[in-house]
Amino acid sequence: MKLTGRYLEDFAVGQTFRSGRLQIDKERIKTFGAEFDPQPFHLDEDAARDTIFGGLAASGWHTAAVTMRLLVESDLKPAGGIVGAGADEFRWPRPVRPGDELHIESDVLEVRPSRSRPDQGLIKVRTTTFNQHDEAVQIIIANLVVRRRPAQRGEETDATELVDRAS
Amino acid sequence: MKLTGRYLEDFAVGQTFRSGRLQIDKERIKTFGAEFDPQPFHLDEDAARDTIFGGLAASGWHTAAVTMRLLVESDLKPAGGIVGAGADEFRWPRPVRPGDELHIESDVLEVRPSRSRPDQGLIKVRTTTFNQHDEAVQIIIANLVVRRRPAQRGEETDATELVDRAS
Repeated sequence: MKLTGRYLEDFAVGQTFRSGRLQIDKERIKTFGAEFDPQPFHLDEDAARDTIFGGLAASGWHTAAVTMRLLVESDLKPAGGIVGAGADEFRWPRPVRPGDELHIESDVLEVRPSRSRPDQGLIKVRTTTFNQHDEAVQIIIANLVVRRRPAQRGEETDATELVDRAS
Repeated sequence: MKLTGRYLEDFAVGQTFRSGRLQIDKERIKTFGAEFDPQPFHLDEDAARDTIFGGLAASGWHTAAVTMRLLVESDLKPAGGIVGAGADEFRWPRPVRPGDELHIESDVLEVRPSRSRPDQGLIKVRTTTFNQHDEAVQIIIANLVVRRRPAQRGEETDATELVDRAS
């Protein structure tokens, strides 16, 4: 698999990227919960009823993982892949329920070259995950490491021509 | 499964909670990647070599999910479960590699009652995930919703006594 896609120079503040939809399956909520977040509200309908969620809900980390899947499949596609350095903000305003259908919208908030690494830069992207009622279930403002566009063959030729002319 | 554990009143700034250890399996890195983060550096050793990671690495969301598992099994145990409202900071300073053995340390940074909900409060907890070399692979500062201790039977009796005496 070859990584191609957008370089830092191809991103601009104000760009928006959208995804397809993924449905959250009840059984996957439970198996994800059993492996990574074994608490009653992620494991069993009856036990979930008396909790703060009032019923079965997906682990926030399940929502985060599905959001990543949607982001990888969106048109964002940075050259070198989606590599997160971390997040400035991260919230789950509403639980995800069995059968919910999620999609995302990613807005580019900032684009800047790295001070220490001339071959890369950072983009700040706010990704909002919505359910089928267009209610936000997760908001994350993440910093992604993105490659800068390598020097073009054309530019190299130009440099050689300058040397040629100077000699 | 009955939820018992610490109420807001049982948490104090400066408390530290630790976990056991969990090893990250190479095959699980790949299957997690295939389901949630299908990018070359999470799927295949050869394809990962030429990427920013220079080899196979766990998805950051896999690291986050395993961290949650460690946190659920730690002594933190808030009454009502570990319910995250979101995070103020979230970073992956170092990749997680196949075979890495992770553990966590959680420090309570803040404890405060809710202004709008008299039955609950928030604690701010910094959870650092370490590998077997005690290098941090994830740092998250999360806000958790925690129940306040319900009125005690003793206090109710006192109130009744006051009414009795007043009548």
